[in-house]
Amino acid sequence: MIRKLLIANRGEIAVRIIRTCREMGIRTVAVYSTADANALHVQMADESVCIGGPAAKDSYLNMNNIIQAACQTGCDAIHPGFGFLSENALFARLVEAVGLVFIGPKADVIERMGNKNEARKTMQEAGIPVIEGTPGIVSNWKRGLKAADQIGFPVMIKAANGGGGKGMRIVHDHDAFKNAFLEAKAEAKACFGNDDMYIEKYIENPKHVEIQVAADEFGNVVHLFERDCSFQIRNQKMLEEAPCFLLDDKIRKAMCKDAVKACQAVHYSSLGTIEFLLDASGTYYFMEMNTRIQVEHPVTEMITGLDLVKLQIRIANHNPLGLKQKDIVCRGHAMECRINAEDAKADLKPDAGKITFLNLPGGRGVRVDGGIYDGYTVPPFYDSMLVKVITFGDTRLECIKKMRQAMEECVIDGIHTNEEFHYFVLHQKELIEGVYDTSFAQKCLKEWMENESV
Amino acid sequence: MIRKLLIANRGEIAVRIIRTCREMGIRTVAVYSTADANALHVQMADESVCIGGPAAKDSYLNMNNIIQAACQTGCDAIHPGFGFLSENALFARLVEAVGLVFIGPKADVIERMGNKNEARKTMQEAGIPVIEGTPGIVSNWKRGLKAADQIGFPVMIKAANGGGGKGMRIVHDHDAFKNAFLEAKAEAKACFGNDDMYIEKYIENPKHVEIQVAADEFGNVVHLFERDCSFQIRNQKMLEEAPCFLLDDKIRKAMCKDAVKACQAVHYSSLGTIEFLLDASGTYYFMEMNTRIQVEHPVTEMITGLDLVKLQIRIANHNPLGLKQKDIVCRGHAMECRINAEDAKADLKPDAGKITFLNLPGGRGVRVDGGIYDGYTVPPFYDSMLVKVITFGDTRLECIKKMRQAMEECVIDGIHTNEEFHYFVLHQKELIEGVYDTSFAQKCLKEWMENESV
Repeated sequence: MIRKLLIANRGEIAVRIIRTCREMGIRTVAVYSTADANALHVQMADESVCIGGPAAKDSYLNMNNIIQAACQTGCDAIHPGFGFLSENALFARLVEAVGLVFIGPKADVIERMGNKNEARKTMQEAGIPVIEGTPGIVSNWKRGLKAADQIGFPVMIKAANGGGGKGMRIVHDHDAFKNAFLEAKAEAKACFGNDDMYIEKYIENPKHVEIQVAADEFGNVVHLFERDCSFQIRNQKMLEEAPCFLLDDKIRKAMCKDAVKACQAVHYSSLGTIEFLLDASGTYYFMEMNTRIQVEHPVTEMITGLDLVKLQIRIANHNPLGLKQKDIVCRGHAMECRINAEDAKADLKPDAGKITFLNLPGGRGVRVDGGIYDGYTVPPFYDSMLVKVITFGDTRLECIKKMRQAMEECVIDGIHTNEEFHYFVLHQKELIEGVYDTSFAQKCLKEWMENESV
Repeated sequence: MIRKLLIANRGEIAVRIIRTCREMGIRTVAVYSTADANALHVQMADESVCIGGPAAKDSYLNMNNIIQAACQTGCDAIHPGFGFLSENALFARLVEAVGLVFIGPKADVIERMGNKNEARKTMQEAGIPVIEGTPGIVSNWKRGLKAADQIGFPVMIKAANGGGGKGMRIVHDHDAFKNAFLEAKAEAKACFGNDDMYIEKYIENPKHVEIQVAADEFGNVVHLFERDCSFQIRNQKMLEEAPCFLLDDKIRKAMCKDAVKACQAVHYSSLGTIEFLLDASGTYYFMEMNTRIQVEHPVTEMITGLDLVKLQIRIANHNPLGLKQKDIVCRGHAMECRINAEDAKADLKPDAGKITFLNLPGGRGVRVDGGIYDGYTVPPFYDSMLVKVITFGDTRLECIKKMRQAMEECVIDGIHTNEEFHYFVLHQKELIEGVYDTSFAQKCLKEWMENESV
């Protein structure tokens, strides 16, 4: 029975978790770096513990200090949120080792899904379509090139332990392969301390469609439909929606079924997300599995009426799902815009500083999940996301119109944000028609910067 | 076809209407008094027109100036909101006379329902239960007393054109009747320029349950279930919920059916509300019909998924309802807390002044409908309502927990509000059990003031 929970995170997601905990009657402990003493999540939690200096490695990535804080405050459980330690198998192991509940799947599963090449192999064995590629690690560029020639260009060179766009290269022809491989390998070594590399067919301009799943330790698995997260700048999602508009229902059903199969293949027990790439022909491929709550989970909450954080905590607390697939219905359409402290005019360069005036949107069908307040100083050390604005409509168009209105109402003075860029995006033909793929966002940004510089 | 609409109101409801208009592609014109030049609704509308001085009679009740503003800005329609001119038949007539659409029912119906005695007669003829009382106006206290003796004490003396608790007296025995009658009559004369009086049986400590209805000019009528508005201080609602918890389903069905019948009896065409009193035995009585949108409409929007302002505009625009009774489903539970600029410690005395810090609640299942912003100065001239916080839950308890959390998150510095009182109310046994009647709020306030003064 979880009675007190430490949130090993900050900002919006920490606030989000606190809200559900309070509703569940669970006491909360916030942790914070010295740069975050005035953060909203610290003010909202029942207790708070400073865990180190501003650099993430000293605080939000500092496993020992976090676990110590949990033990000292008498917590039963730790919720890792997203980012930071949320997909760190060692952390999950340490949490369990001191007798606390880790709100997430078993450490072994985190580890297995964290290695992209192993995840890919597991899924292939389970009969889930994966992108054509090398069956395992390629030890050097010559073997890589041979594999690439067989697969056919363009190919993607990937670090097995990669993430966040690091240790990856797209190669369009035979001659460019060697340099790209060596560069990516060096980058992987530097970023992840591991330079195991593999090669995949590169899918050009796919849609990014992911399936939310939930599974308990009693073998019950359900999917909660899909999210379209194709709007990405440099692999960073910025706008998400659910369901995926115009997705053929046959393909939707097949993806959802495969997502459930993926969970069963690894005896998954928690919330999770199966990310797929969907090409223009309607063929989809397993990309990776995220073993944590995701930034974009609210759009799924809006269309299903479920509280995913509550579900996640309940599963970790050894409760059965209490949900049958047939009872989960998708109603209406939801969209999320991430409002980031970024200077959109400067190619989305992160910004920081004091918020001198804040007005957040409101009204029917508008949800605001934020981690800031008027007068708050955004520190320069962490992710730039300030607020998520989520809108809901009976139809997608209603949802878009509400989001435009919400962006008009949203005022964040004192720092640069991407809010005006969102407003621009919400008026673009491709977005309105719902036909955009992963190439759209970058094109949009370029066009917007050109307009703005006139 | 409505393309441009003037909102003859201010504050929260003006903002609420603007939001729906933008979504519908209707341009908006705000009107404002000289005291409201910096108000949020003025900033949000496409255009705005100053219509007079701070006193309501010079601006928001100034029919000529409002209609002139609508004509000058090329509006097709006027939305009266609630309060002010929303139930003024003359205003509705003038609006129609200059060729504009009045967003509400026909003036004749407003007039007929505005006269409480006539409304009561109409409903009685339609077979809807009304409170036992005199069949018409009683010309003097002697006839009144005779009627009261027949009805049996306690009785309520009421002004036919009354409202807002004025021109009303509860009388518990024969001897107190004369003075009470003469006082109420004098008050009615002073307040409404009309001292027609009638007598009704007084229902002690009833629940206030009202049915939301919508009807079009083609004879389609639907109900949108009920709201429990029993939490009232001096006839002013402060917290509302939908549905009414623990209401016997047989009684609910009968009330809804009678509400539809009431609409049919007057060939109603707009949004409307039939207010009933429900006594402890489960007997209910027609109290009055409100021929406008109500403050508490969001709780109905939450449980039905409908946009009531959109519906109201569509009906006024001669569209059919487009809704069938069987398709309207009640899901979950919703609650609304009105955050007013009132000093709860001083018996809810209205307050005004500058908001020095503002933090509004957010997250899943929380809707905020406001008319203020950080740094805004609340003028002393109008209704004290600043913000409505609405929460939604699968269950009533979840809804209450969310509202408690929302009240904790809500910070309005610089002026007094009733927010802490709401927080207290949300922890009271009667509220939690859902068994409170119209006597509860006053009792709560007394208890809270006693606690606070310790």
